[in-house]
Amino acid sequence: VKAFIESTLDRAAYQPVNPKILAELRQILGPDLVHTAPEVLVCHSYDSQDYSAMPEVVLEPTSAQQVSEIVKLANRYKIPITPFAASTGRTGGSVPIFGGIVLSTRRMNRILKVEVENRLAIIQPHVINDHLNQEVAKYGLYFPPDPSSKGVSTVGGNIAECAGGPHCLKYGVTRDYVQGLEVVLPNGEIVDTGPFGTRNYSGSALIGLVTGCEGTLAVITKAYIKLIPLPKVYRTMLVGFDNLTAMARTLTGVFYSGILPAVMEFIDNAAIRCVEAYMHAGLPVEAESLLLIETDGDAISTEIEFNQILDICKNNGATSIQIAETKERRDQLWLARRSLNAAIMRYKPVKIAEDIAVPRGALLKMLEGTKKIAERYRVHVVNYGHAGDGNIHVNIMLENDPDEIKRGEEAIDEIFRLTLQLNGTCSGEHGIGITKRKYCSWEFQGASYTIQLAMRDTFDSNHIMNPGKIFE
Amino acid sequence: VKAFIESTLDRAAYQPVNPKILAELRQILGPDLVHTAPEVLVCHSYDSQDYSAMPEVVLEPTSAQQVSEIVKLANRYKIPITPFAASTGRTGGSVPIFGGIVLSTRRMNRILKVEVENRLAIIQPHVINDHLNQEVAKYGLYFPPDPSSKGVSTVGGNIAECAGGPHCLKYGVTRDYVQGLEVVLPNGEIVDTGPFGTRNYSGSALIGLVTGCEGTLAVITKAYIKLIPLPKVYRTMLVGFDNLTAMARTLTGVFYSGILPAVMEFIDNAAIRCVEAYMHAGLPVEAESLLLIETDGDAISTEIEFNQILDICKNNGATSIQIAETKERRDQLWLARRSLNAAIMRYKPVKIAEDIAVPRGALLKMLEGTKKIAERYRVHVVNYGHAGDGNIHVNIMLENDPDEIKRGEEAIDEIFRLTLQLNGTCSGEHGIGITKRKYCSWEFQGASYTIQLAMRDTFDSNHIMNPGKIFE
Repeated sequence: VKAFIESTLDRAAYQPVNPKILAELRQILGPDLVHTAPEVLVCHSYDSQDYSAMPEVVLEPTSAQQVSEIVKLANRYKIPITPFAASTGRTGGSVPIFGGIVLSTRRMNRILKVEVENRLAIIQPHVINDHLNQEVAKYGLYFPPDPSSKGVSTVGGNIAECAGGPHCLKYGVTRDYVQGLEVVLPNGEIVDTGPFGTRNYSGSALIGLVTGCEGTLAVITKAYIKLIPLPKVYRTMLVGFDNLTAMARTLTGVFYSGILPAVMEFIDNAAIRCVEAYMHAGLPVEAESLLLIETDGDAISTEIEFNQILDICKNNGATSIQIAETKERRDQLWLARRSLNAAIMRYKPVKIAEDIAVPRGALLKMLEGTKKIAERYRVHVVNYGHAGDGNIHVNIMLENDPDEIKRGEEAIDEIFRLTLQLNGTCSGEHGIGITKRKYCSWEFQGASYTIQLAMRDTFDSNHIMNPGKIFE
Repeated sequence: VKAFIESTLDRAAYQPVNPKILAELRQILGPDLVHTAPEVLVCHSYDSQDYSAMPEVVLEPTSAQQVSEIVKLANRYKIPITPFAASTGRTGGSVPIFGGIVLSTRRMNRILKVEVENRLAIIQPHVINDHLNQEVAKYGLYFPPDPSSKGVSTVGGNIAECAGGPHCLKYGVTRDYVQGLEVVLPNGEIVDTGPFGTRNYSGSALIGLVTGCEGTLAVITKAYIKLIPLPKVYRTMLVGFDNLTAMARTLTGVFYSGILPAVMEFIDNAAIRCVEAYMHAGLPVEAESLLLIETDGDAISTEIEFNQILDICKNNGATSIQIAETKERRDQLWLARRSLNAAIMRYKPVKIAEDIAVPRGALLKMLEGTKKIAERYRVHVVNYGHAGDGNIHVNIMLENDPDEIKRGEEAIDEIFRLTLQLNGTCSGEHGIGITKRKYCSWEFQGASYTIQLAMRDTFDSNHIMNPGKIFE
């Protein structure tokens, strides 16, 4: 983990958290919720990418009212606030690069209400994604967004990053499940859109701005989450291909067929070998690529669609098909899929992990282009991701060697250029944070950029809310 | 149609469109696309609610570039611009209450591309909703939002108002189908988010702000529309109840059952009688209320869900059930549903039409409360709408009598108060425009209101974009 250079450079723009301010914070929260011990600060200094930065104080408010008072104080003294949930982010959104306050949501972790008839869950921000699903499954309900971190990441964090996941192909991303929010604005005002926030422009504009804003416009203190009926059955297959063209043809076949599968995940050969070495899941290590395909819903239509997809795979050159006939096998395949990020660390010690998305129809061009770029810069690339969405996690794997790292960074620049050429986006589901600011400034230029900076000024004239994120 | 008083009161804040400005507009567009003939102006002075106001000039640009030049000129001279599509709106969004320029989108009416594999349509704003669906149906694809006006209203207008419709219960509202936008900002800059706009925060924030903004933040010049597979079959039933409690129990039963029907439309007795007198659709005129219920999808699961819902209706006190066994009967029932707005005009000459939404679980309380309020103010109320969404069109029907109209307006105020008490919203799917500004100022107060005014200032410091809409 590298220390982020901005944390020392720009901290001068803000007031240090001095003993007087700490005393005021203790008055707001009581002494137990204000932490300055180094071991606590360190635990709030990083997420799951490479840069870290130390906060000056970690706060654990228990209510929107307390958050509001913290924000007002931070405004008065000009102290940066970085909202912090499970810190599983991949782009540095929760890293306090200007020091100041880390505002942990961990004490706001309750499911307040599940309204079965309204298919609505009202929750505090720090409810773990899996926990919400375990609770609402009791009522036959389901919250689909499923980032690989779902066992530990929070729904509030998922909203702040607008997280995706394998099932977002069929069910949409986190944004599609936010019906309303209670937020604390940078001036300390508490706004609650209620459960119908998205039905009315005034609410939907605010929800649209806050979802995915990575804590730069507001702190989420409550969420009204849309739920859908839990699929009754799943059918899962693992399909191998000996060339990318056959895989792309299969994808095209499925999307021309009128089926919308729940999942179409892609894993390339390098990733297959890594995960197989890591956990022996019985993946076909000779395959050039794999598609993990799932259909879900009621028993009959799930089976019909599954069989249609099987035929499409066979007709388009699949070289192997494994069907998960038991729950255990399905769980094992999913564990393999969710372990990819950890598994590929075996490949090389340094990883530059990116998260691009291109229109499905451009996926083959993107994968072939990535290969050529890697060859040109003499680096290794491992690709996997949500093929159905065109959302690929491109990982450049490197030795810990300055020259190789430099070539890796140049290769990544090329990969982003190709992404934009193909009408894609630099950020499929991991947010922008600090690590993608540069690429987003390529993607969004002119008015679309300046208007957002102006909007941020409108919300937060003192720039106290998670400064340094999203925009360069 | 009443003339809107603001059109004369506040026009002084803007520059009149004088001959010099007309000459400049003719230079931008050529003479054929600049209209000042009274018969053209009149045609662009109203939508489908009660207030009208005359524009000074009607422009018909053919490209984003022309729109940009118009907007720049309007900024230079301080002339209001009201974007105008099919003007089927219900809240006055396209009525030019401050005069100035009406910017008609009618010459930007092409479907630019349908990308089957990407399930994407790229369109100009003035494509008619039904035309888009006819075109994409050729590829087995579907754009679900279906306002009653879909035969004449445009997709650009649907986006500007974030239109809903009966099928939005299962499929979501217009916002859920906007993947990207090209817009002209109030300073004349053209921003194109591309087809992946919603996957990246920078794009999604802009799309979220523009969708539903009723032309107050930008002019939509191109849209990237998400499509889904066209359902293969439909099954439709018309279910009668002799009391609202049984109907509410049936709704609850369906939502507890884990089924998500495509459509659950509600019609009350007064509306049934009106539409029956209007078109003799064979509705049961004795019923206290009707639910028009539809399931859709593949043949087998559609039938299974249909039969489950039939059982739920029977077990919860339905007094009559008609099943549409032919396409003709289904079409007739839908024609009846879509004719309600016109049909109820037979009831009384003056109608105050509102569009509230409450959580499904509060629907019975809302309908009973509405009845009591109508009794208290001695007015007649006709209710219909999207019961599955809790979205009810409350229509107060009045004689053309000042005292009765005053009582009607007081009753509407009460109905909105009840809506907010029940955690509902003042605008389910018709936007805010001019007719709901007052009620939205009740719903959104304090920071949520001021921040939006500030955001509008950020976009449009000269207040040229559709002034007087949404905010009082």
